[in-house]
Amino acid sequence: MSVALTPEHEVSTFELAPGFRAAAAACGLKKNDALDLALIWSDQPCAAAAVFTTNRVAAAPVLVDRERLLESGGRMRGVVANAGCANACTGTQGLADAVRTAALAAAAVGAAPLEMFVLSTGVIGVPLDMVKVERGIAALGIAAATASGAGVARAILTTDTRPKVASATVSIGGRAVQIRGFAKGAGMIHPDMATMLAVITTDVAIAPRALGTSLRSAVATSFNRISVDGDMSTNDTLLVLASGASGVDLGERGDPAFDSALAAVCTSLARQIARDGEGATRLVELTVTGAAGEAQAYHVADAIARSPLVKTAIHGADPNWGRIVAAAGACGEAVDPARMRVWFGAGREVQLFEGGVPLPFDRARASALLREDPVHLALDLGLGDAAATVWTCDLSAEYVAINADYTT
Amino acid sequence: MSVALTPEHEVSTFELAPGFRAAAAACGLKKNDALDLALIWSDQPCAAAAVFTTNRVAAAPVLVDRERLLESGGRMRGVVANAGCANACTGTQGLADAVRTAALAAAAVGAAPLEMFVLSTGVIGVPLDMVKVERGIAALGIAAATASGAGVARAILTTDTRPKVASATVSIGGRAVQIRGFAKGAGMIHPDMATMLAVITTDVAIAPRALGTSLRSAVATSFNRISVDGDMSTNDTLLVLASGASGVDLGERGDPAFDSALAAVCTSLARQIARDGEGATRLVELTVTGAAGEAQAYHVADAIARSPLVKTAIHGADPNWGRIVAAAGACGEAVDPARMRVWFGAGREVQLFEGGVPLPFDRARASALLREDPVHLALDLGLGDAAATVWTCDLSAEYVAINADYTT
Repeated sequence: MSVALTPEHEVSTFELAPGFRAAAAACGLKKNDALDLALIWSDQPCAAAAVFTTNRVAAAPVLVDRERLLESGGRMRGVVANAGCANACTGTQGLADAVRTAALAAAAVGAAPLEMFVLSTGVIGVPLDMVKVERGIAALGIAAATASGAGVARAILTTDTRPKVASATVSIGGRAVQIRGFAKGAGMIHPDMATMLAVITTDVAIAPRALGTSLRSAVATSFNRISVDGDMSTNDTLLVLASGASGVDLGERGDPAFDSALAAVCTSLARQIARDGEGATRLVELTVTGAAGEAQAYHVADAIARSPLVKTAIHGADPNWGRIVAAAGACGEAVDPARMRVWFGAGREVQLFEGGVPLPFDRARASALLREDPVHLALDLGLGDAAATVWTCDLSAEYVAINADYTT
Repeated sequence: MSVALTPEHEVSTFELAPGFRAAAAACGLKKNDALDLALIWSDQPCAAAAVFTTNRVAAAPVLVDRERLLESGGRMRGVVANAGCANACTGTQGLADAVRTAALAAAAVGAAPLEMFVLSTGVIGVPLDMVKVERGIAALGIAAATASGAGVARAILTTDTRPKVASATVSIGGRAVQIRGFAKGAGMIHPDMATMLAVITTDVAIAPRALGTSLRSAVATSFNRISVDGDMSTNDTLLVLASGASGVDLGERGDPAFDSALAAVCTSLARQIARDGEGATRLVELTVTGAAGEAQAYHVADAIARSPLVKTAIHGADPNWGRIVAAAGACGEAVDPARMRVWFGAGREVQLFEGGVPLPFDRARASALLREDPVHLALDLGLGDAAATVWTCDLSAEYVAINADYTT
């Protein structure tokens, strides 16, 4: 097994996996003529898998895609995405608009209407402007489309400050296969915005059921391990499409090397999303070890990563380990402060707490470690062997400003 | 049954219930000679009940008080409290310091060492300075103490911007009894600070077990219904002490009128705490109705009250009802957006959402309702008859500034 993850790179050179083409247009859903419509498709049917928001208030495109994935048996052609409008809380008209958007996109590339997924992100509670969508799809320039993903990676952005792309090459049976994805958003972090979208393309052939298994496993330790503000959007969707163009067929069983590479791409995208959280100035990587089980490790880590007190302390570079310990204690898990140990820094450079009492530590150095990007925090619970890593970001006054000062 | 709740009033006129005396001193745990040590006691044994933090990382005074309440059978004399140091994460030395503080206070008023509770709030992970505590207890002026609670209500404050007191008079069998309490803090909302303390005094006679039942019932709809930042402190403690000085004996069964009055005092104190949340500019009262059960109503309301997106939108007076709906959908309860209705304003003045789609509404008026204090939000789930009300505050950039910019 060998996985080579391309470093987080300039979006200008980003390409989809072989077998896919992409087109983007500006149709006016965003202001200032910014790209806001994206179409990604394969000329042949591809295997598809997806993970959707578990929010009970799901947007129209999520409801449409869930059904489409089931009814197609995971054989699809592509996905059309818009930013600037979430098509959420829009009732039956919203469902009709999502279906029509997919049908228009499908027709543009010669696919059947039901073979196209649809994604939306943007304002909640506003109908999708179908005049603009229709105009945008007509303007995509399908005939001239290439594998370049630079346009679509930009078109799906909302409040993101930068595009997010990740690529991995993995050798399976002596042949290289590609996994190339892009993403937007970071939790539900903007006024009226609804958020996390990711599309991952690969050129393996694989049974949809095996692709779904691989995706869910990858998501468990990546997209499901990031937190920006604890709010889950109505639109979160992660799609993976497999073209088969590499000639490598993973069949019904998949492949561990493929699983690892997909997980690596998902982790890279998830970290980029956390790093680009609203108002964030740095990524925070928190590892909880010594837990009685992985669920406990994750539960404790997630509680700490959600704590506004922990996140503001990091923002202020305040080596305030007591907040980490208190957040762990408050989450409901049977933790014991007398068994806990807390460190800051990569490689657990500075230890702050052990045996129920504070340790003397270099305050200036501990503070400096909280100014690094990424910030590394470690907590050992002293209860067992399980571990979990989560990613979050610091919480700045800018987060409040962005999310409060929207009206007018 | 008749309950008269004194309006939230000037602390200068606040008195404890008959049978209690109070003394406060400045011993140097806080800066600037501010009051930081408080002693409240009865000359006779009184009935006691308490509710403590469920944080697994409990401070030394919480550990001491829990044991003391059990071993005394709820027969105590009073409580000594300090601000400026939480005595949390301080190991066995912390336990010894808590025990000694209580013993010194007990000796000062002629009580047995085990008859005194002890409360602490302030910095985590720093030992209690016993030289200062000892000096402070000596300086309390026990002999001259009266029922005035103005000093003690101030002495327990940390980052609070104002003291919090509440009083109720209730007529039981034709005789008036008093319930008078004070509180501090608002969740774990300050750098290193550990937080919510409340002491309620009453002049009824009542069996400790009945007092505990009444207290837990009152807390369920008051202190357990407020959220400032979702962080639970290591020190949260609510004590109630009953002197019996009124001559009204509620015995083993308690009294519904007393229960109502105690709940009214708790609700007033809880609302004052939420209103005074770090950086808060206004109180938010959120009522969820139409739930399938009270647990569901509370779960949905709590999720909304914790949402940074909802709280920042209120701060910005942004009539962003989509965030309320999305937070309800994300909490794991089986809610249905098509059945939900959302209103702003007292008396549900402006409706924003129904039948899964936005309603047209007066945006300027809706925004103005979010600038009122308190802000009223209402969500009906359309699933049943259960309801819950919670209180929170808006989230301002000041919260981040206070909690981030502490190091130096």
